[in-house]
Amino acid sequence: AAALDLAVIGGDGIGPEVTAEALKVMRAATAVAGDAEITATEYTLGAAHWLTTGETLTDESLEQLRGHDAILFGAVGAAPNDTRIPSGLIERELLLKLRFSLDHGVNLRPSRLYPGVPSPLAHPGDIDFVVVREGTEGPYVGNGGAIRTGTPQEIATEVSINTAFGVERVVRHAFALAATRDRRHVTLVHKHNVLVHAGHLWRRTVEAVAAEHPDVTHDYMHVDAATIFLTTDPARFDVIVTDNLFGDILTDLAAAVTGGIGLAASGNVNISGTAPSMFEPVHGSAPDIAGQQKADPTAAILSGALLLEHAGHPEAARRINEAVYADIASRGRADGATARSTAEIGDDIARSV
Amino acid sequence: AAALDLAVIGGDGIGPEVTAEALKVMRAATAVAGDAEITATEYTLGAAHWLTTGETLTDESLEQLRGHDAILFGAVGAAPNDTRIPSGLIERELLLKLRFSLDHGVNLRPSRLYPGVPSPLAHPGDIDFVVVREGTEGPYVGNGGAIRTGTPQEIATEVSINTAFGVERVVRHAFALAATRDRRHVTLVHKHNVLVHAGHLWRRTVEAVAAEHPDVTHDYMHVDAATIFLTTDPARFDVIVTDNLFGDILTDLAAAVTGGIGLAASGNVNISGTAPSMFEPVHGSAPDIAGQQKADPTAAILSGALLLEHAGHPEAARRINEAVYADIASRGRADGATARSTAEIGDDIARSV
Ligand SMILES: CC(C)[C@H](C(=O)O)[C@@H](O)C(=O)O
Ligand SMILES: CC(C)[C@H](C(=O)O)[C@@H](O)C(=O)O
Repeated sequence: AAALDLAVIGGDGIGPEVTAEALKVMRAATAVAGDAEITATEYTLGAAHWLTTGETLTDESLEQLRGHDAILFGAVGAAPNDTRIPSGLIERELLLKLRFSLDHGVNLRPSRLYPGVPSPLAHPGDIDFVVVREGTEGPYVGNGGAIRTGTPQEIATEVSINTAFGVERVVRHAFALAATRDRRHVTLVHKHNVLVHAGHLWRRTVEAVAAEHPDVTHDYMHVDAATIFLTTDPARFDVIVTDNLFGDILTDLAAAVTGGIGLAASGNVNISGTAPSMFEPVHGSAPDIAGQQKADPTAAILSGALLLEHAGHPEAARRINEAVYADIASRGRADGATARSTAEIGDDIARSV
Repeated sequence: AAALDLAVIGGDGIGPEVTAEALKVMRAATAVAGDAEITATEYTLGAAHWLTTGETLTDESLEQLRGHDAILFGAVGAAPNDTRIPSGLIERELLLKLRFSLDHGVNLRPSRLYPGVPSPLAHPGDIDFVVVREGTEGPYVGNGGAIRTGTPQEIATEVSINTAFGVERVVRHAFALAATRDRRHVTLVHKHNVLVHAGHLWRRTVEAVAAEHPDVTHDYMHVDAATIFLTTDPARFDVIVTDNLFGDILTDLAAAVTGGIGLAASGNVNISGTAPSMFEPVHGSAPDIAGQQKADPTAAILSGALLLEHAGHPEAARRINEAVYADIASRGRADGATARSTAEIGDDIARSV
């Protein structure tokens, strides 16, 4: 069996609890599939680590992380009312720094309504789409600034940067992914009637890549209209490709309509293989329930399956996905999710991979 | 009775049909209330006008529009597949140009789930909130550009501009509005953990204005989390204050959860009174059903009520709102909305103001 050398960043709050279960299930699945031997190195990073050391992510840690095959990430961030930690600091200097430094240009966020999971929608339909979110550009680049701060003349700017390089690779990935799916359809979501410069780059890129994929259909939707359709007819979507900020917004909405972020997995993918990709649940650190074994580890476990699929272990990934589907299906009947501890859910899924 | 001198821009598609009904109902309500004599001047503007004249909004028209007390706006924009019209041109050079030129810094968008209206949510609850959207700044300013367009080295930028002046006036308006409502609560929606410069300006402004309103509570929510709560618990919101782009996204989602944009009204308000405010339904021009008397004029009629309230005719506004509520309530029973023509709905509401 090939060696799979993982870095694990549990992070804050429920992060370490859910990554522990993801690792447990990944080990069980690769053992049964017999195709990978997982070694895992824990990295202690996050808000708690910053409070004791003043460090978010040192150059040394970043270099060490680069040496692994992939990263399993939990969640970072302190309680919203914890005033000791500057707002957004850990998100920017750890999570976003990892995405940018490791060139995670393609952020994959599948959305599926699993049988038996209650949706807030009255008629959700058969929801199964993937948002392919750009991960290294857009308004997330940290450009911009402020002058005359704190005065009535203050001006603050944020600059969204979009490059042909960054847009093309994520659009290519979206079309290639759509070509492997049943409906083979890509929807570009943007706001090109207002954000004309970035919008034209995105549209031209989609038209160019679409011309190479006669088997894949495509359409366009403004981001505001997309929120309407995600609420009234989410089953219509197959693959959505969009920028960093719109992708952030749409994937939380997508998680909501498919029963909550407790089930939403994601992969921050370096498609050129120059640095490890990173897999994380979409949910946050939920400090209010941390350390109590109350968190649902399913999103982290599904992120582990994405990791394995990406690392070339599709059989182990398939086993995890099927065990998770079966586990979720059983919850409706037994209300298992609330009755079981975080570790018990992990144990149950690990046993049935 | 005071004279109320309106400009009416019906626009494209269903725009002229719905503004005609709004005007009919406004005339009926002011006649009964006996407090205003409406005169209306039609302005022919929009995509069709551009196709015949090449003009979007001339300086002359803009100057004439400035002379009116208020503007009633329908909808603009051609069919999405009409390739004769550059994408977004009419939106930017007519609608956004009006909002910016007439300094519509406060964009009011009430969201209410009327009794009897079906929501796509299984358990919508009692939804009644107002989004107070900034209307003249943010990523809508049209700053940014592109270099090396069409080459693999293309870079396209969009610049969001936020000023203390623009943020403060809209935040003040939100708190003043909240102070008149039952729950007296303001939620700032932004993404300050990523968009730090603009985010800090918004947060500091909210804290400063909140200090002057001890009677109004407030909290903060990231825009991604806000889409979750708008789907799982929209009844929690009272007044949301947010920037131009987030406001665009959230109000379409809000319209969706309250039963569709057929009922969503809005006001683009110049709070200093230096130019007329403009009132418009949130929906678009719906070219597919234009000229067939199939459009629901309710959103335009409710926008007319907002206009009257704003112009100092609260009694006429109240009459329209109540007639609309009664009409909507009767629809569940008789499926009146689909059976009646646009003009019949207007007639019915005008009769009962
Ligand atoms: C924590 C935050 C910086 C992050 C983002 O905005 O990307 C999160 O919301 C996400 O979606 O992964
Ligand atoms: C047509 C478009 C420019 C406009 C906007 O983005 O503001 C519309 O979506 C709205 O919400 O009024």
